[in-house]
Amino acid sequence: MTGHAIIAELIRCLPAKSVVTDPDLLASYQHDSAALCESHPPMAAVLPTSESDVQTTMEIAAAFGVPLVPQGALTGLSGAANAVRDCIVLNTRKMNRVIAIDAVNRIAVVQPGVTNRELKLAAAEAGLTYKPDPSSWESSTIGGNIATNAGGLCCVKYGVTQRFVRGLRVVLPDGRAAALGRKTVKGVAGLNLTELFIGSEGTLGIITEATVSLDPTPPTPLTMAASFPDATAAGRAVASIRAAGITPSLLELMDRTVLRALEKHARMGIDDAAGALLIAQSDTGHAAAHELEDMAARCADAGGFDIVVADDEHEAEQLVAFRRLSYPALETMGSPLVDDVCVPISALAEMIDYIEESAAKLGVTIGVVGHAGDGNLHPTVIVDPTRPETLDLAHRAFDDIADKALQLGGTITGEHGVGLLKVDLLSRELDPIAAELQSNIKRLLDPHGLLNPGKVMHICNEAMA
Amino acid sequence: MTGHAIIAELIRCLPAKSVVTDPDLLASYQHDSAALCESHPPMAAVLPTSESDVQTTMEIAAAFGVPLVPQGALTGLSGAANAVRDCIVLNTRKMNRVIAIDAVNRIAVVQPGVTNRELKLAAAEAGLTYKPDPSSWESSTIGGNIATNAGGLCCVKYGVTQRFVRGLRVVLPDGRAAALGRKTVKGVAGLNLTELFIGSEGTLGIITEATVSLDPTPPTPLTMAASFPDATAAGRAVASIRAAGITPSLLELMDRTVLRALEKHARMGIDDAAGALLIAQSDTGHAAAHELEDMAARCADAGGFDIVVADDEHEAEQLVAFRRLSYPALETMGSPLVDDVCVPISALAEMIDYIEESAAKLGVTIGVVGHAGDGNLHPTVIVDPTRPETLDLAHRAFDDIADKALQLGGTITGEHGVGLLKVDLLSRELDPIAAELQSNIKRLLDPHGLLNPGKVMHICNEAMA
Repeated sequence: MTGHAIIAELIRCLPAKSVVTDPDLLASYQHDSAALCESHPPMAAVLPTSESDVQTTMEIAAAFGVPLVPQGALTGLSGAANAVRDCIVLNTRKMNRVIAIDAVNRIAVVQPGVTNRELKLAAAEAGLTYKPDPSSWESSTIGGNIATNAGGLCCVKYGVTQRFVRGLRVVLPDGRAAALGRKTVKGVAGLNLTELFIGSEGTLGIITEATVSLDPTPPTPLTMAASFPDATAAGRAVASIRAAGITPSLLELMDRTVLRALEKHARMGIDDAAGALLIAQSDTGHAAAHELEDMAARCADAGGFDIVVADDEHEAEQLVAFRRLSYPALETMGSPLVDDVCVPISALAEMIDYIEESAAKLGVTIGVVGHAGDGNLHPTVIVDPTRPETLDLAHRAFDDIADKALQLGGTITGEHGVGLLKVDLLSRELDPIAAELQSNIKRLLDPHGLLNPGKVMHICNEAMA
Repeated sequence: MTGHAIIAELIRCLPAKSVVTDPDLLASYQHDSAALCESHPPMAAVLPTSESDVQTTMEIAAAFGVPLVPQGALTGLSGAANAVRDCIVLNTRKMNRVIAIDAVNRIAVVQPGVTNRELKLAAAEAGLTYKPDPSSWESSTIGGNIATNAGGLCCVKYGVTQRFVRGLRVVLPDGRAAALGRKTVKGVAGLNLTELFIGSEGTLGIITEATVSLDPTPPTPLTMAASFPDATAAGRAVASIRAAGITPSLLELMDRTVLRALEKHARMGIDDAAGALLIAQSDTGHAAAHELEDMAARCADAGGFDIVVADDEHEAEQLVAFRRLSYPALETMGSPLVDDVCVPISALAEMIDYIEESAAKLGVTIGVVGHAGDGNLHPTVIVDPTRPETLDLAHRAFDDIADKALQLGGTITGEHGVGLLKVDLLSRELDPIAAELQSNIKRLLDPHGLLNPGKVMHICNEAMA
């Protein structure tokens, strides 16, 4: 009944075709790519094409007291974009205009639904590059990348999404739009609200425009790979490379489980003795060959073998494509549930050991891929959909791994975010006073708890009335 | 009377010698290095040596309803650390312990009173470097650098202080201490409160500990200098260098007024025809010579002459030392008042033109030095202390320059902060809704307006009761 009135109001106030109510179509807006998280059918999906559409939708949600869940390409892995009960989802994919590319000042202004791939292409036309490269880069949106402060493979040298965002336009939970940040390289005029919204997973506002930094295109990287008897040895090599002050532009790890799955899936001819593989790149031009040599020597010292340097660009691309195939390869074994922890580099080997022990103890299969150069691992539990108990075991494994990461001075999430998946774990990591401050800021911006409720932090509804 | 009671309570609760009340000594805690800003004698200065001392001081300030102003080395240029009427100042310089240097994970943990220089030295002992290099680096503190999100000469390649901060401990206006952020390279667990405190100029909390990133030491840079007929031509060279995708590790500009002052002061043999000088560095090792050649060619195209590449490290150091002497050289001409604006690189030449016109129109002397590669300029008005009207003219010049920077898509402050100096200008830059949000966050954290009141933003006391 109320649902009907809300939908009627959305249809009345928004442009034609921007409100989806067909249950079959709505199903595709129900959840992101995190299989473990709760989701509900939304009452409607709104597909805005302008900031004004976003404001109208937010105003209607506020007027009716209905939760609103912002979404991008739904590639997230923590349920942050999952529809909650009786909500409106607002999917920004149709806000997909590259508004400006300014080559002299090296900035791009884009709507939130532009994909990372589309922005990279637009930047390339101006002879520049947009650096951030989450694994989902071909389909994930810039709005989603910023809302989750997405990581990726290049972060080991170039940093996460945050480093590339200069300014945002956001629609607040009261429907008002605000411009945050700046266009210039530097600027310290007032509190840094831009950063507060980056990584807030749609809980504070809806991003309607972003001004991001573009960079010169670095030289084509040189690539090497090294096999190791086990992932622990590979972890030691990573620590040695980082401690030596080498800055690779990519440093990725795959463990035995992932390698076997990849070998089956893609037949790359990886030695059966390989218990782990490291792939490294250097994009420093003239210095790259020397950096790879240095890294190769450190890999050998840590027990590495079959150390190869890609002879040409094609071979190098194959190695990186191989890394990017890890997830599809694991999918052939069952339903992969991807975890995400980050530990100090010095604790990488111990973290990997622990994950192996945990897998053995619980009797589950866990493959590990990771942005090893950042200490960021994605232990991936293979769930057997025909055996529901493996899902419970996956939950237990995630829980154990999070605790171990915290014990090692790490974090429960390096780049995937808290979403729904880790909302119960967050209090183990955060200082209680910092957690209280986060809740208070959420309440300040969204006193009625309408924007993406239940995500990132628990806020009891009583307190938000 | 109340003052006596507060001082007695401070002395009773804090370690011996940590409370300064002698008026002669208090004078040295009254203001930072911004000559134009209002300041008042503080009722007491507290010199904490521990976080617990900071908490005690904040609690006493809160109990008595007395304003508390946090301070570092007082090298700031916007009055952010100036004592307000009847306040306690809390100077963190004695909290000067380097708590840990972790070479494998490339982090340092320091108390806020450690100077930038001391941290650089401690990092160097571990074979690493702490990159941020504000001009005040020899004496300014890490706490102050973070509270103002300090810039510097290296930012053109390496970014501002913010980029190097992983975590903070802060004492909030209610006296509670909170840990924010993380130790790891990456992390997205909850809202990014660390960034909210960076650059908040002591208005939200007092930094009591910082975890910062260290980096490998880059190769010794190669250095070049080019003279130009005027600063506008130099501005065009900078835009051309940036648009070409070259990333110098330093790119500094000095205009005619600064060069004449430097020539008088340091006798470097700069050609009389030089209306501006650019100094550039490249620290890319093998690629550096090629980058300098490329920059030199672009300087020549923009009208540059007397283009020299430093033959050795000593000559290179002299060139950079020459840049660092700009302020002392200007001091020989009168009282220099340093402004700070940042514009898009493409607008650099127009901004410089405008500053020259403004100086001519108002009949004041303005020298321009700047981190040109970032579009960040420091127009410096020379005030004649014997002619008070020159001070008014300086104010008018600052006002005009800020408006022009905004009109060009820039900001009223690139790196010096708002403090007291620009609190009236801030509303010209900020979106009104963003400004309201900033005030609301300040009120949320500091409902009684006790921490560094009147800085960065105007908040009427009625609203904060």
